[in-house]
Formats: sequence, C-alpha cells, structure tokens
Amino acid sequence: MNIGIVGLGLIGGSLAIDLQALGHTVLGTSRQASTCRQAIAQGIVADASLDLALMAAADVIFLCTPLGAMDVTVDQLLPHLSTHAILTDVGSVKQPVVKSIAPRWVNFVGGHPMAGTAESGLDAAQPKLFAGNPYVLTPIASTPPHALETVSELVRSLQSHLYQCTPADHDRAVAWVSHLPVLLSANLLTACTNEPDQNVLELAKSLASSGFRDTSRVGGGNPELGVMMARYNQLELLRCLELYRQDLDHTIRTIREQDWLALETQLSQTQQARPEFLKPDFPKPSPE
Amino acid sequence: MNIGIVGLGLIGGSLAIDLQALGHTVLGTSRQASTCRQAIAQGIVADASLDLALMAAADVIFLCTPLGAMDVTVDQLLPHLSTHAILTDVGSVKQPVVKSIAPRWVNFVGGHPMAGTAESGLDAAQPKLFAGNPYVLTPIASTPPHALETVSELVRSLQSHLYQCTPADHDRAVAWVSHLPVLLSANLLTACTNEPDQNVLELAKSLASSGFRDTSRVGGGNPELGVMMARYNQLELLRCLELYRQDLDHTIRTIREQDWLALETQLSQTQQARPEFLKPDFPKPSPE
Repeated sequence: MNIGIVGLGLIGGSLAIDLQALGHTVLGTSRQASTCRQAIAQGIVADASLDLALMAAADVIFLCTPLGAMDVTVDQLLPHLSTHAILTDVGSVKQPVVKSIAPRWVNFVGGHPMAGTAESGLDAAQPKLFAGNPYVLTPIASTPPHALETVSELVRSLQSHLYQCTPADHDRAVAWVSHLPVLLSANLLTACTNEPDQNVLELAKSLASSGFRDTSRVGGGNPELGVMMARYNQLELLRCLELYRQDLDHTIRTIREQDWLALETQLSQTQQARPEFLKPDFPKPSPE
Repeated sequence: MNIGIVGLGLIGGSLAIDLQALGHTVLGTSRQASTCRQAIAQGIVADASLDLALMAAADVIFLCTPLGAMDVTVDQLLPHLSTHAILTDVGSVKQPVVKSIAPRWVNFVGGHPMAGTAESGLDAAQPKLFAGNPYVLTPIASTPPHALETVSELVRSLQSHLYQCTPADHDRAVAWVSHLPVLLSANLLTACTNEPDQNVLELAKSLASSGFRDTSRVGGGNPELGVMMARYNQLELLRCLELYRQDLDHTIRTIREQDWLALETQLSQTQQARPEFLKPDFPKPSPE
C-alpha cells in the first residue's frame, strides 16, 4: 500500500519507520527541506518532499501536523488527493478535527495514537513507538466502513491496542486522564509559589520530595502543549474542572467540619480506584 | 551516650540501627513483646522492653509512636525519665506535638526526619534511612540551647540535612509539599470515578497513562496516613486548600474566557518553578 505521512515529526516519523518496515511504500512531506533530506537519508521513507503533490500517489494519508496547523494543511492537501484516498489524523483532540475535516473529505477517519516521549521532531522518531499503547479511532455516522476497516488494519499492524469511540467520548476521556491532570498539577506549583511568606516558600522547596515531584510533574511540562489541549478541548476540560472543583469543595468542607470518617471513606475509595486506571488490558510487550 | 527509642517501627528501628552503629547504647520499647524480641535478636538495640521504665537510663529519647499515640505515651513516659533527659519526637506535624509536650518537659525538641519507604514496621527498618534527607528541628523560645545542640549533633551524625524552623513554618511548608498534594491527587481519582457516563469512565481507565499515574499516585495511598495529616495539620492544610482553590478558579476563568496568552504565561511560570523544588542542597549520597 502507498502510505502518505504529512508532517515528519516524532509521530509521523515513527509511523513511517513502522509502516515502511511492514512493507508499505511510505511517502512523506515536511515544511522543512532538511527534514525531507534526513528522512530520505535515513531510509524511513521511499520519497519525501516539501510539495503536498507527492500525496497524489498515496492510498492512506496520515495527517501528523500539530493541531493548530491541521486546517490550513488540509486546505492545501485535498486538491492533490486521489478520490479513493483515505485520510486519517493523529491529533490529541478529536471533536474539532472531525468536525472540520469530515465534511470536506468523506473518506476521513479521526485517530489518536496515545504514545509519545518527552522529545519531539524526527530525531526522536523510533520503531514500535505505538506497540502495546492505545490507538483510538473516532468514526462518525458518515464514515465509510471500508475507510474505517483500512485504518483499523494499519493500526493493528502497529501492534497498537485499538479503541473505537465517538469524538465526544474520546475528548471527555482524555480531558479526565490527560488534560485535567496537567492543570491540577500546574496549579499546585502556582499555589505553592504564591505563598507570601518567603521563609515558608524556601523551606517548602527544601522539603519537597517524591510526592511533590510526582504530583507536579505534568504541570511543569511544555506550556504550548498545555495551552493547545485547553484551546482545542476547552468545553470538555471546563466540564472536568468544574466537577473536580465540586469534589475539592466537598473535601474542604469535610476537613473544616472534622468529619474524619468521611475523609477516610473518600481516601479508601481513591486507594481502591487507582489500580483500575493502571491495568492496561494489553500489556506493552517487552522489547525484543 | 544512652539513647532511648520509644516505638520500634520503620523510623524508630532505623534510628536504632544508625545510632547503635555510631557507638551509642540504644534502649528500645515497643507495645509488642515480639518486636522487642526481634530488635534484641537482630542486635539493633542493647536492650528492649514493654516497660517504659527502661527509659530511665536514657540521656536522649526519640519518641517514635504514631501522632495519635503520642499524648498518652508521653503521660506514661515522663514519670520514668531522669531530670536531665532530652526528649525529641519524629512526628510529621509539629505544632500540636510541641504545644502538647513542651509545657510538660522543658528539655524537649520537636523533630521531623523526612524519610520513609512505602513499608512500615521494624521489618522495614534499614541503615542510613536518614542520610542525605532533610531532618527538621522546631525549637521554641523556651527550648534550652544545650537540648537543641545535643539533638542537632545526633541528627548531623545521621548524615541528615538539618533544617531549623518554627513549628508553624514547618507545618505550613509540609502542608504545601506533602499534605496538599495528597488531597489534590485523591480528588483527581474521586472526580474521574464520579464521571456519570460509564462508557467514558471505562475509556478513561483504558487511556490513562504515565501522566495520570504520577498525578494520582499519592492520592491512592494509605487512607489512615491521609486522615492523620488532615487531622493534625488541619488549619495549615485548609489554608493551602483555600489558596489552591483560588488559583484553580482563576485558571478556570482563564480557560472560560479563552485567554490563551494568560494560560501560557501561567504554564511557563510553573515550568520554570518546578526545578526549584527538585534540587536538594545536599544530594543523597550514593549507597556504598
């Protein structure tokens, strides 16, 4: 199969490596000539170009640009595609992407491979990045079954754990487990550093240990990524934030009223609930 | 020096191991005969007993019971102590402990070794548990200088990083970096599991990855410990919770008003702030 990759960064590059290894002919485009040259030199694509016209030969195209660049890239890409071409994307929020692209290209399947590293760019691309990790597809009523089946087969061939749901359910689920944690964690850092007593602040910095380290990790990450998830998943994230705030208010009241039995009940429930979020159905296979 | 250890659990047992190794004569008490026998058999104490009268021979006594058992233990312990004996404790909250013990025993120095493992009990005790970790002492105006100096010397001999501050500053600092994170993290689990849509909840469990794992870790821990910190540090914790909630409300407004520049500014500040909480002045020495 001829596979097109639009955007040769961490995700696009890693897709290229795996799909090429599976015997597909991979064609890539990038907005940077140096990236195209690098992808060709490393042999992870059969050809690469700055020109989206290269995608005319592709049967399935993975759109791997940042969320903010997708709309304008799709405008430029669609005139080049053959009518049977199937388009899919890798954006981390699905409602705005599906709403924007599906009306313009019928053979479109929204997707989100839930894999990544702290690094970005083609230099960070690696084989088997998706193996053992979730890959969500978000078809809608108008999605042609053969388009969904073709993308599903490719996802399975990456050894990903395939999930299928509506764009809304996807965005709500990732708001809970991915976007909300970033904002809670960031506000822990914001609140601490707003401590008005400089002695206490310095002492807190000295006494912080592994609990603080873990709880603050995602809140100390890339600011642009944080803004992007809030921007594109605004409504679902606000919903989670409001629900979280209600529960936090409840805990504050519980502590103010010294209802230690109620607090112990809550903390017993969270102790019991956490492992349910940590057991993947398909464990990531060990590296060979 | 004769050192008394009241309570031979993780902290008391680990103190006994290090202080005995430093050449002191360590005497221990426990409420369980089997623990006394084990401590003697392992050679980590010179003698151990169920009877607090053993502490009559001690120059410095470390009170290593849980916070909830301290008051009643002190009532039973004080009649046995020699008048020159120096008493210190290892409780993780300092204002209630100091307020309770200092009026009853002038040679008292509040203390908090910030070290631990996920395990508890004498079986978990280990050498050098305190080396390279913070150990806070919280003297007050009435604390005799020689008592503070004697306990400080012992703390330094454990290779701990010694901090000295008021009980109030200690409790405020640990509320920020230790107690608040537990409640934020627990409420992340509470809010997620309260998601009314069962499909979304199951999807969220499947898609949760390392970010959720880290942010939820301390909220999924021992419920009794969580209640204890809230109970003994109630006012400082409530203050942190209220300040945190104000910052969270501000972030919710920022996202509702789509002020992405303000959000990016906040997240840039948290990205910059986090490393200040992670750099200990004295790195933990590598194991020999």
